[in-house]
Amino acid sequence: MTDPVDLTARLIRCPSVTPLEGGALQLLEEVLRPAGFECHRVDRGGVPNLFARWGRKGHGRTFGFNGHTDVVPVGDPDAWTVDPFGGEIRAGFLWGRGAADMKSGVAAFAAAAIDFVADTPPDGAVILAITGDEEGQAINGTRAILDWMAEEGEHMSVCLVGEPTCPERLGEMIKIGRRGSMTARLTARGVQGHTAYPHRAKNPVTAMARLIDRLAAHELDKGSAHFDPSTLAPTTIDTGNAATNVIPATCSGAVNIRFNDLHDSAALTRWLRAEADRVAAETGVSIEMEVHVSGESFLTPPGPFVDLVSKAVAAETGITPRLSTSGGTSDARFIKDHCPVLEFGLVGQTMHQADEHVAVEDIRGLKRIYARILRDWFA
Amino acid sequence: MTDPVDLTARLIRCPSVTPLEGGALQLLEEVLRPAGFECHRVDRGGVPNLFARWGRKGHGRTFGFNGHTDVVPVGDPDAWTVDPFGGEIRAGFLWGRGAADMKSGVAAFAAAAIDFVADTPPDGAVILAITGDEEGQAINGTRAILDWMAEEGEHMSVCLVGEPTCPERLGEMIKIGRRGSMTARLTARGVQGHTAYPHRAKNPVTAMARLIDRLAAHELDKGSAHFDPSTLAPTTIDTGNAATNVIPATCSGAVNIRFNDLHDSAALTRWLRAEADRVAAETGVSIEMEVHVSGESFLTPPGPFVDLVSKAVAAETGITPRLSTSGGTSDARFIKDHCPVLEFGLVGQTMHQADEHVAVEDIRGLKRIYARILRDWFA
Repeated sequence: MTDPVDLTARLIRCPSVTPLEGGALQLLEEVLRPAGFECHRVDRGGVPNLFARWGRKGHGRTFGFNGHTDVVPVGDPDAWTVDPFGGEIRAGFLWGRGAADMKSGVAAFAAAAIDFVADTPPDGAVILAITGDEEGQAINGTRAILDWMAEEGEHMSVCLVGEPTCPERLGEMIKIGRRGSMTARLTARGVQGHTAYPHRAKNPVTAMARLIDRLAAHELDKGSAHFDPSTLAPTTIDTGNAATNVIPATCSGAVNIRFNDLHDSAALTRWLRAEADRVAAETGVSIEMEVHVSGESFLTPPGPFVDLVSKAVAAETGITPRLSTSGGTSDARFIKDHCPVLEFGLVGQTMHQADEHVAVEDIRGLKRIYARILRDWFA
Repeated sequence: MTDPVDLTARLIRCPSVTPLEGGALQLLEEVLRPAGFECHRVDRGGVPNLFARWGRKGHGRTFGFNGHTDVVPVGDPDAWTVDPFGGEIRAGFLWGRGAADMKSGVAAFAAAAIDFVADTPPDGAVILAITGDEEGQAINGTRAILDWMAEEGEHMSVCLVGEPTCPERLGEMIKIGRRGSMTARLTARGVQGHTAYPHRAKNPVTAMARLIDRLAAHELDKGSAHFDPSTLAPTTIDTGNAATNVIPATCSGAVNIRFNDLHDSAALTRWLRAEADRVAAETGVSIEMEVHVSGESFLTPPGPFVDLVSKAVAAETGITPRLSTSGGTSDARFIKDHCPVLEFGLVGQTMHQADEHVAVEDIRGLKRIYARILRDWFA
């Protein structure tokens, strides 16, 4: 039996702060290869990635796991009461950067997969797609593995992402989708002037304030069957004009939109452009817009795969998990273009914080859940 | 006869960029003292000021002139085709920094006063209150002279400020008042958070945009008998948040208000505070406000003094001047607390620009106008 707690502790001791490999993927490769997994490093642009498969390439019945070994920086070292890269067990918890997000998740699915293929070799394949860049730009991470897989004829029938998904207790929540995320950077260009003669100027600050106020006041929707309402948050407005008697020439701003399945980034971009045009027409100030889309919204609707995972969680924890689409983005946004994808993992309360930790029992429980999912899915 | 063109040229050759004296006030003192003017330097906090009086202190019939010898910086020297401190006459114009704003005005009223008291000594007094800091902070300038005068028992019955007031042709415009000016600096303090969970944060950018939009959209008034409508111009909004997934904790902004005689700064401050409180109540974001008042609005209503100056202008130029309250602030905002004050001077088109210049004939014309005003007022 592979111990997921020990494997997590060893992974924590690899200082794999994005985009450093830190020995984490090498350790996994050393554990997976002897268990019969074919391993490929898919490193791209300085980002380390690991693809591992047990079973035949292109098998029609292939279960995939996805996760990441990179972690966010330690932050203020003085805020920690333990060594962030010590992997200590104390008072029933495993401590260190990545304990919750998500070296434990990777260790749990790796351990579950290793034991599963050894005990009851299935007629099918198991793929582990593990990236070293989920916390960073995520350009050369999971997306690069998926591109490589497509080129190589590798295929997953379904995929489970091992990110922490439970708010307080293991078993509470499965993520069946995620909202999309996009950022619009706005630049208002007017005509500089003296505040004593505002009619001779065109004030970009006024235009930006009006546009941001209108965007923030607009109700995008009231939510949908599986999603909370979409949200728009202004994140900044900047001018840098220290002179109180001068109307400046430019003013910039930005808004971040988290949108559900009632929208897509193209339609939202058209809406933003129309609102900007309306303010431009009213004020005579031109407004430029640059949109960056982090990911579209997606949903793996309730159905057999969702049921299977839910029942496995309930059987191991006694809790019927909620099906949620809350939270930020994850690499599931890339995987959904290839196969149905769900997310289930540990309690994420301390992720990104000092003294990040996770209950030792939860890591063992998560391995049991992943193992049951594999058994039930291949049954 | 004192030549105002030569005196202006000599003043231009004194490089009296605020707050440097540059020899300008010394030159005036050297010209005024032999003409019977009692001179006092009223220097305060590094700012040079000159008080000069012909006639008895505290005389019930005292005519005052006010002006400044300091000039704004040259700016880009390459933008000039003449020596900014050369005082050259070319093609009928006198060129140099301060030619329009306002060494010519000071030279014209000094020359007019010198000749007037020599030719027809009046039963009264003439005061010249000339500062070396009108373009700068103006804290130790005309205000300091006025304070000193009050302490010394010096008194002006009326005062004429020699600032350039004419848009295109000498004689077009007398300023009988000025709008007030005040600046409010606003700081919104919310609760930082992740853009994926905006309901857990309190967004100061949203609050600032809404407040600035409301303030800018509000019509303060439609103007009054002698004033244009009051204006409010947002001058800046600043956040400095580069992270597109973070709602920041604070956002600052500023607005500048130019207000007519329908308002005062205290009432406007109360209005701003009420609008800020309304947005704070709507958003849960606290909004701090710091107000700086540059000057209250004031008006010297049409009456005998205005009529006298208007008729003198019309007699010398053939133009009936408009009575205006337009433009920025001037030192008249300090003088109005002591006596009726008007402003009349040259064409100000090139003030603060490169190749600042003024028509030689206009300087002579301005001296004649000032001389006629003195004759008529003491008649």
